[in-house]
Amino acid sequence: MPAISFNIRSEDRRTRARTGSLVTPHGEIETPVFMPVGTKATVKAMTPEELEEIGAQIILANTFHLYLRPGDEVVAELGGLHRFMNWKRSILTDSGGFQVFSLSKLNKITEEGVAFRSPLDGSALFLTPEISVRIQENLGADIIMCFDECPPYPASYEYLKASAERTARWAERCKKAHVREDQALFGIVQGGVHADLRAWSARATIEIGFPGYAIGGLSVGEPKNEMVSALAVMDEILPRSQPRYLMGVGTPEDFFLGVRHGVDMFDCVMPTRTARNGRLYTNEGLVNIRNACYTRDSRPISESCGCYTCRNYSRAYVRHLMMSNEILGSRLTTWHNLFYFLDLMRRIRASIDEGSFCELEEEVLAPYRIPSKMEKNGK
Amino acid sequence: MPAISFNIRSEDRRTRARTGSLVTPHGEIETPVFMPVGTKATVKAMTPEELEEIGAQIILANTFHLYLRPGDEVVAELGGLHRFMNWKRSILTDSGGFQVFSLSKLNKITEEGVAFRSPLDGSALFLTPEISVRIQENLGADIIMCFDECPPYPASYEYLKASAERTARWAERCKKAHVREDQALFGIVQGGVHADLRAWSARATIEIGFPGYAIGGLSVGEPKNEMVSALAVMDEILPRSQPRYLMGVGTPEDFFLGVRHGVDMFDCVMPTRTARNGRLYTNEGLVNIRNACYTRDSRPISESCGCYTCRNYSRAYVRHLMMSNEILGSRLTTWHNLFYFLDLMRRIRASIDEGSFCELEEEVLAPYRIPSKMEKNGK
Repeated sequence: MPAISFNIRSEDRRTRARTGSLVTPHGEIETPVFMPVGTKATVKAMTPEELEEIGAQIILANTFHLYLRPGDEVVAELGGLHRFMNWKRSILTDSGGFQVFSLSKLNKITEEGVAFRSPLDGSALFLTPEISVRIQENLGADIIMCFDECPPYPASYEYLKASAERTARWAERCKKAHVREDQALFGIVQGGVHADLRAWSARATIEIGFPGYAIGGLSVGEPKNEMVSALAVMDEILPRSQPRYLMGVGTPEDFFLGVRHGVDMFDCVMPTRTARNGRLYTNEGLVNIRNACYTRDSRPISESCGCYTCRNYSRAYVRHLMMSNEILGSRLTTWHNLFYFLDLMRRIRASIDEGSFCELEEEVLAPYRIPSKMEKNGK
Repeated sequence: MPAISFNIRSEDRRTRARTGSLVTPHGEIETPVFMPVGTKATVKAMTPEELEEIGAQIILANTFHLYLRPGDEVVAELGGLHRFMNWKRSILTDSGGFQVFSLSKLNKITEEGVAFRSPLDGSALFLTPEISVRIQENLGADIIMCFDECPPYPASYEYLKASAERTARWAERCKKAHVREDQALFGIVQGGVHADLRAWSARATIEIGFPGYAIGGLSVGEPKNEMVSALAVMDEILPRSQPRYLMGVGTPEDFFLGVRHGVDMFDCVMPTRTARNGRLYTNEGLVNIRNACYTRDSRPISESCGCYTCRNYSRAYVRHLMMSNEILGSRLTTWHNLFYFLDLMRRIRASIDEGSFCELEEEVLAPYRIPSKMEKNGK
């Protein structure tokens, strides 16, 4: 029996958006879903109970960071990630590939794998598809990912082609290496922004066969229209009966783009990282709470928001905490941003079920279009 | 009608320890009480709800820090400290005096007050008894403190005498300046470690007349036996019918010393600050959770502790969070230490009521005497 099951509940008539149910050994996930990122086995500033309270259904943890510290064998000895961090719902781990390339300056790729230096102590390390799978089996997430290369943007056509081919060979090795039956291993499609490479990578990955497919290598700096084209190609080729995961994405705008093309799963550090810098997502647009104009503002961050922060604290107080670098500041802003992202996904699911997805898109994105702060990177 | 009332509930037969009830405009406080420190209108890493959950009855906020940022007038405009930080129980503010002397290198004391430079931006500032009271009235705590000088240790007899005399004159000015009837203004006794100066300062302060008295200028580096002598002198002179507050103290050992001499109120950054460094108080003694021996330790920080952290997380996980500088690490350790301190005060109150105070002292301090880590500073 496969580790996960996926069923589509409803489909939008005007787009390829759909709602569904993804069942893992740790419960049911309603899709489309946003997965908060808990890099080092903690979603920064939040407890597991708080994540449950705001409706997180699945979180992501980073194999690369946990491999370095405390070590996957330590986590295994302590009963796996769920028990280690006391999170009772689903977990997805990435393969470590993305961080090997983005965080380790000194890396050398061979057919066998990637040699790199630990950013913690400079020690020489080596990751292969087999080692990545073994680490992810030790960590024990419900969904684990194939070890892939995520090439930078821009990269030459030749490089992207060779990389996508190697990623496909690595995917085959990952599938062979994977033995735990209570985990689902997802394949990852690469190919940069080239339609033919994307299509080739998707077909090759599907041929190997996985219970779910991820779209990798997007949101790495390419113009927005290139991302949209790539999503359209993926949507044509990926089997509609299986869950689709758009990795490392993103913003409210990107959610709508992804969902329009049948994407079911998203993850991004955006809401948590920007929160700690005081940039807050609201129904009225972006708020930079460190702005001096909020010094004496007794209103909540957003008057239309029902989160813990907005129910209990003023802009003036949150600003004061952020200006004073207080831990409670990061807690309150993280809570708010994650609540906004998870609530947005709830609204997206409801709109698909009710046939009003396009109307919701218009309503949600309008305030973000005016100040246009979010559109700087791309489009 | 005075802003507070104080009633003694029970007295220990073998020591001068007593339990009592201190009622402020924001509720009843059982004494002896430990007041967590919320320097900048937040007890670092904790929400007000969490503080209530672990039994905090009153917290302390620092006038000096809030005067600098966000400014007492901003806090007043937002409805005062209680509303600003969403804390519904009692608050005490210090006078700012201690910080003016300890945090501002460049300060100049005159009879009028103290000129100093803001540590935030170097701007020239001036605090007087009248200004300190006005700031504290703007902040709106239930209990506020007279503006005093807390001399360093060691200091010459002549300096301590002149300083105590000036502090007494300032206390008179504070009392005159104080108009808010929903706040209680406490006097502060100084005099260093000299019995005659302490006695003089206490009598002078009592003569001015306050609803409560604080013992200042202790736990500033003097040997433990000098502190005990000073406490004994204070205990002889201070009126037993009014609450006594031992400022900036301290450790479990110091609580017992204070309570033995009839002290009712304590505050200290110790539990919160040491928590963020990974030093944890337990019934079994001090635990440095960053120690490598906890890497694979699946037990809670303390098996005899009932706090949220100990009920849900392993030493290995808390250590991992601390080694990774994760916010959740500071949250879990702060929760644990504050729980220990507040629970210790509950046990002290119960032991006084039940006549077993000395036995509890022996039981609690035994594990701290063996590693002797806590006794380095003094004794």
